Amino acid sequence: MSTFDDVTEQVRRESALTEEVIASFAGSTDDRFRTVMESLVRHLHGFVRDVRLSSAEWDEAIAFLNKAGRITDDHRQEFILLSDVLGVSMMTVGVNSPPRSRATESTVFGPFFVEASPEYERGQDISRGMSGMPCYVHGSVRSVDGAVVPSARIEVWAADDEGFYDVQHADQELAGRGHLFASSAGEYDFWTVQPAAYPIPHDGPVGDLLTAARRSPMRPAHIHFMVSADGYKTLITHIFVAGDPWLDGDAVFGVKSSLIVDFFEHPATSAAPRGRRLDVPWSEAVFEIVLAPVD
Amino acid sequence: MSTFDDVTEQVRRESALTEEVIASFAGSTDDRFRTVMESLVRHLHGFVRDVRLSSAEWDEAIAFLNKAGRITDDHRQEFILLSDVLGVSMMTVGVNSPPRSRATESTVFGPFFVEASPEYERGQDISRGMSGMPCYVHGSVRSVDGAVVPSARIEVWAADDEGFYDVQHADQELAGRGHLFASSAGEYDFWTVQPAAYPIPHDGPVGDLLTAARRSPMRPAHIHFMVSADGYKTLITHIFVAGDPWLDGDAVFGVKSSLIVDFFEHPATSAAPRGRRLDVPWSEAVFEIVLAPVD
Ligand SMILES: [Fe+2]
Ligand SMILES: [Fe+2]
Repeated sequence: MSTFDDVTEQVRRESALTEEVIASFAGSTDDRFRTVMESLVRHLHGFVRDVRLSSAEWDEAIAFLNKAGRITDDHRQEFILLSDVLGVSMMTVGVNSPPRSRATESTVFGPFFVEASPEYERGQDISRGMSGMPCYVHGSVRSVDGAVVPSARIEVWAADDEGFYDVQHADQELAGRGHLFASSAGEYDFWTVQPAAYPIPHDGPVGDLLTAARRSPMRPAHIHFMVSADGYKTLITHIFVAGDPWLDGDAVFGVKSSLIVDFFEHPATSAAPRGRRLDVPWSEAVFEIVLAPVD
Repeated sequence: MSTFDDVTEQVRRESALTEEVIASFAGSTDDRFRTVMESLVRHLHGFVRDVRLSSAEWDEAIAFLNKAGRITDDHRQEFILLSDVLGVSMMTVGVNSPPRSRATESTVFGPFFVEASPEYERGQDISRGMSGMPCYVHGSVRSVDGAVVPSARIEVWAADDEGFYDVQHADQELAGRGHLFASSAGEYDFWTVQPAAYPIPHDGPVGDLLTAARRSPMRPAHIHFMVSADGYKTLITHIFVAGDPWLDGDAVFGVKSSLIVDFFEHPATSAAPRGRRLDVPWSEAVFEIVLAPVD
């Protein structure tokens, strides 16, 4: 029974509310904060208006956020997972990545970073007894102009061959993560274990969302890197294992083709790098890191 | 140093990510869920793109949500507060309210509702010793066509004269809230205390947001109502106390002029309604409730 006038009046009221809320932020002296809040309010209001959100759906949204809050702790980051599965994390990465750059591409940070990781010497094994095929990763750190970047800090973390990070195990002993420094010639190397594809934690509300969407929680096998050096933008990225069946269906949209790396499998040998003596097969990945200078 | 081609490529990549994420919801058989998620993804991505969200700002957003999760419990609903102060709650109310209706207008639900409230007989005092001037509220429940709605369930909750709800006090004893039923002639009445203006809880992340915006956390004095009856849409609303200085600056944008009610002050008298004998002044508010039938 709504008339043209009713619709006009409805649109007027809804628009007026959006402007009223935006105006409530006008008193801030922080221009960036005002800009961000204005856009956030416009988009959130636009969402509610576009879908004509019901009050039962609003209740569900609040319950979802409450559940996400309850399940979150130091080792479970449900809001990061939510941002990841909605592609918000990758969009943030995207808007901060120049379209053409010789620098290594970025991808999602993910929920499994731990602030205080153990420090290792180059060439050491960071796996600390994690299960999986031994894996040797090495490469160098250079600037986009080809110059060596000496002594970059390289932080790495990865899942074991069952797809679990250290912090997901009951004992939560740190393993398969650490930081080391490249040499003055920009070179780095370490041993770890070959990572496996894994499902993101899906026993919480984000898992329910994926189930409702009939989406898989799987991520293709990868090793996380965070590389920092004075004068360069910090690089947050992964290397993905070439051939992984989930490369085309990453639950968090993180795959970029430039980040897919061959993990070459060597037979069991007594002459593995860094003097390791192995009677099992091992893999080797080369990852050449290119950093962009700060603007 | 970005060229026209760079910008084109950047826009293409960002749009492609949005479409990829939306496509990930295509497998759901629930049309409404797909519609809601598509709009949510478009608006969240639009926000990140519009403001060129930095990765430090993304970190802040995650930290904000984590804090909101940590402070939330059965009696502290930070995500409702967040929705309220961003006007998302009132926009949800708005899109569900016809522009012209003879029914009583709705407003925000707020964070202080409690599921299991005590039941009262008509005319009883629900304040249970809450501090404040005695206040007698009465009226009737009718349909938009003027017909009596018999026996509606009326749930009310309000703050005391210091601006605190029962659940905000250390003992958390329920007071100033309850439900009663209108008579077969549609009439209801109860005693409570005159509510006071109050700040929404602002010792958490939502309070920090208000501070950053230089916004007041105050809400004008009000009494919450939720009125339900078979065959009618449940009404969630407040009555606001006429003359309150915060009527023009409600932190949650909940005021509608039709909901502002005179709280008439009577001198101390030995003949207050329902046989109450008072030696202090008391107030009286009349609130005629009009319900809309279900569609
Ligand atoms: Fe990961
Ligand atoms: Fe309230």
